[in-house]
Amino acid sequence: MSKTNPGRFFEDYRVGQVIRHAVPRTVTAGERALYHALYPARHALYSSDEFAAACGLGASPLDDLITFHIVFGKTVPDISLNAVANLGYAEGRFLRPVRPGDTLRSESEVIGLKENSNGKSGVVWVRTRGLNQHDEVVLEYVRWVMVRKADTGAAAPDAVVPDLAKSVAPDDLVVPEGLDFQNYDFELAGEPHRWGDYQTGEIIDHVDGVTIEEAEHMLATRLWQNTAKVHFDATFRDDGRRLIYGGHVISMARALSFNGLANAQMIVALNGGAHANPCFAGDTIRAWSEVLDKADTPAPGVGAIRLRLVAHKSEAGDHALRGADGKYAPQVLLDLDYWALMPK
Amino acid sequence: MSKTNPGRFFEDYRVGQVIRHAVPRTVTAGERALYHALYPARHALYSSDEFAAACGLGASPLDDLITFHIVFGKTVPDISLNAVANLGYAEGRFLRPVRPGDTLRSESEVIGLKENSNGKSGVVWVRTRGLNQHDEVVLEYVRWVMVRKADTGAAAPDAVVPDLAKSVAPDDLVVPEGLDFQNYDFELAGEPHRWGDYQTGEIIDHVDGVTIEEAEHMLATRLWQNTAKVHFDATFRDDGRRLIYGGHVISMARALSFNGLANAQMIVALNGGAHANPCFAGDTIRAWSEVLDKADTPAPGVGAIRLRLVAHKSEAGDHALRGADGKYAPQVLLDLDYWALMPK
Amino acid sequence: MSKTNPGRFFEDYRVGQVIRHAVPRTVTAGERALYHALYPARHALYSSDEFAAACGLGASPLDDLITFHIVFGKTVPDISLNAVANLGYAEGRFLRPVRPGDTLRSESEVIGLKENSNGKSGVVWVRTRGLNQHDEVVLEYVRWVMVRKADTGAAAPDAVVPDLAKSVAPDDLVVPEGLDFQNYDFELAGEPHRWGDYQTGEIIDHVDGVTIEEAEHMLATRLWQNTAKVHFDATFRDDGRRLIYGGHVISMARALSFNGLANAQMIVALNGGAHANPCFAGDTIRAWSEVLDKADTPAPGVGAIRLRLVAHKSEAGDHALRGADGKYAPQVLLDLDYWALMPK
Repeated sequence: MSKTNPGRFFEDYRVGQVIRHAVPRTVTAGERALYHALYPARHALYSSDEFAAACGLGASPLDDLITFHIVFGKTVPDISLNAVANLGYAEGRFLRPVRPGDTLRSESEVIGLKENSNGKSGVVWVRTRGLNQHDEVVLEYVRWVMVRKADTGAAAPDAVVPDLAKSVAPDDLVVPEGLDFQNYDFELAGEPHRWGDYQTGEIIDHVDGVTIEEAEHMLATRLWQNTAKVHFDATFRDDGRRLIYGGHVISMARALSFNGLANAQMIVALNGGAHANPCFAGDTIRAWSEVLDKADTPAPGVGAIRLRLVAHKSEAGDHALRGADGKYAPQVLLDLDYWALMPK
Repeated sequence: MSKTNPGRFFEDYRVGQVIRHAVPRTVTAGERALYHALYPARHALYSSDEFAAACGLGASPLDDLITFHIVFGKTVPDISLNAVANLGYAEGRFLRPVRPGDTLRSESEVIGLKENSNGKSGVVWVRTRGLNQHDEVVLEYVRWVMVRKADTGAAAPDAVVPDLAKSVAPDDLVVPEGLDFQNYDFELAGEPHRWGDYQTGEIIDHVDGVTIEEAEHMLATRLWQNTAKVHFDATFRDDGRRLIYGGHVISMARALSFNGLANAQMIVALNGGAHANPCFAGDTIRAWSEVLDKADTPAPGVGAIRLRLVAHKSEAGDHALRGADGKYAPQVLLDLDYWALMPK
Repeated sequence: MSKTNPGRFFEDYRVGQVIRHAVPRTVTAGERALYHALYPARHALYSSDEFAAACGLGASPLDDLITFHIVFGKTVPDISLNAVANLGYAEGRFLRPVRPGDTLRSESEVIGLKENSNGKSGVVWVRTRGLNQHDEVVLEYVRWVMVRKADTGAAAPDAVVPDLAKSVAPDDLVVPEGLDFQNYDFELAGEPHRWGDYQTGEIIDHVDGVTIEEAEHMLATRLWQNTAKVHFDATFRDDGRRLIYGGHVISMARALSFNGLANAQMIVALNGGAHANPCFAGDTIRAWSEVLDKADTPAPGVGAIRLRLVAHKSEAGDHALRGADGKYAPQVLLDLDYWALMPK
């Protein structure tokens, strides 16, 4: 018997099953520096210990998306090694900041299963939790993927389709303990725009573009211990191209969104997201955002803003999202819906 | 109104204006490790805590050029986003070592303005200061750039051209507190050559070459939070090439200069510098140095050496600097004039 | 006289000579994070402080190969700058874990010399030791290289060929103090296979492949302060290709071996190794392992396993090692023989 991991197939999942993912990871200032080298990340709360302390957080936490990537990366060998498609995210919440020295691990509970009518694959819904060394949940989210069956003769499970929130309700957002934006330094943060300056429906073009290199997306994806072959092995696809990890596009677009959303400091929820089209080395990524909603929070000086973040690979100012057929336009790479915290 | 930063234009500057640049940055051992991965940096004082302690400095500071790049990077959105040319540096002094855990920010004072006769652009002189979390100045330098006007009809300001020193005077060099080279270990440092072994006028060819990759210069430039589009976006220039940040060439050449100048440990002043020609991925960078001057310092065992560091992209041993017309030879990338400290 | 280092030539070595290599290096969490970005490294003991502590080690040490690369890198300017070929390794032992904050330096003793019959070069054997800031040896190994003579008229030294062990004897393996695998968490480590599950002669195909990029191998090789020109300068070889540092292939193959050998946690000895064929950017590296031997250790729950690790650049499942002529097959890049520690 082979000792290598073949991954799980659709018939290997059961609703209620909890999978404890392998390889816990201690994060450090090294991951933080690499994040700043890999993405044009400039949100001040994650760049300066002094700025974070002035906002009531003590030393600067790691970028929220570092937490997401590490928690997600651990699930790959158990959830998506035999996945055909990454279908969606929902109910994502960041529950606690992660700091250098913390050790993260992940667990996923299977919360839904539905075999496809072709009998060759099915959809698996999991609720994944990232935990720190104190077994405190730092992040949770639901993700669903289409997974192949190894044995097409295996019986279909009873279909269980979870009822997922269209977005995280403002009351369910968790503001980090101590966060206080009353003495927020807009000049040091890089932009004067407050929460009150943004209007629902407003579109912000983030202007800048970054051309993607093979070495960079592989460094990033490895750093998160994401092992999906398609990101690393140029012989895996027939066209000799390495597919870029969708999370690389998320981080690139979020970092680009600094220009116009420098004060949307902390991501507190992921309402949903689609990797609309594949991204490859050589693509130049640009981004625009749309304000979807706003909400107050109980924390002093802190407002919440719900944003659509779209990454695309055409010229700046192209805000097309879907074609007449309702499908994503071919230049769109990412359509992400999240809540961030902003000074009022 | 767009919320993205359009940058400042020539008519937006006033002599005496002080610009507090955005996004403070806490530096760590992560930046230090990345610096060693990006450049063949081997100066022992920045590589080993033990070596630095034996020289009276306690734990190893971050490479002086890390300080320069971070302080410089913060000025880009305010000073050079609409710059047409980076014209020069002067009066640069490193005033205090930067250590892991320090938080850096930058301020620039406009000290000169002169509109060009074409009425379309002008030269802006700024004195930039990098400060740590205790508001102590760690670095200061003057830089001048040519900046476009947005409104060519805007009135020309009174011309103010600052009177800048041709080089930092030896008496103005700041030797880090405690530095003592009396017990300097030449064997561990990598070369036997002392301050007394170098002669003014001497040329040192640094022999080695490094071929530059897109991924590397982008990782470096992002790490310093330098956002100039031309370094990242392959669609920005008509020729589809990304211009390499001049500071990447400075660090590469300085690191290459270890071979022949391993004991020119600390950079204490930048007298001047020119990015003579653009550098692109695929270029192989080599370097040579010329001893321009020498001076004593009051610190035990510590001498100062003034060096010209030239980076070029032709074969090893090519020491051409300027053509018959007085212009830089086309293979020359950098002509930097600095003071370093060396054991006597 | 040139001040740059010309390297040593064959006639410059004497049996018994001890060379203290330059540039000590303090290692940090930054090197650790970069290692995880450069290689798909997932062995839990080096990824999680909690996991390492549960195995009796306290905080997670740095990957053993980081120690190897740093100790090795320092020897390059003194041992292999004028080497024609890297011939072999033997008697390598990891004697003490290295942790963030430790400072490493290297020393080599010349233990053998044999001039080639052509009179133009000779073989130099050195025993290299890596030491930490307490002058404790953390690693030792023997390496032999073929080095050119500068003066072909120089007299040949008396031939001294050291008698080297074919492999490190199990009794000579040094198990890190405190290591205890009795409460080993196989689920978190990523695989259920224990020491007892592996049979001598068993072959494990590690399935995954990684396509190598120029930027990545240069970042890695620089991080270890390895200065051999051929890795960095595209103009050095006539074919314009940069030869990849053999250690980059070692680390890539070792990381790939996680898939099937996730519990072969710590490398404790290097019995031998050959860089069978050169590796270049664009090659897709795969790996397979063969169990060569097994041995018990006195540490609780800890077994030792001797492994052959082969890296190659052809399709997965190709386990060819040598051709009919006894020479390495052209697709083989590395043939490494090492001892690792594994839970029983």
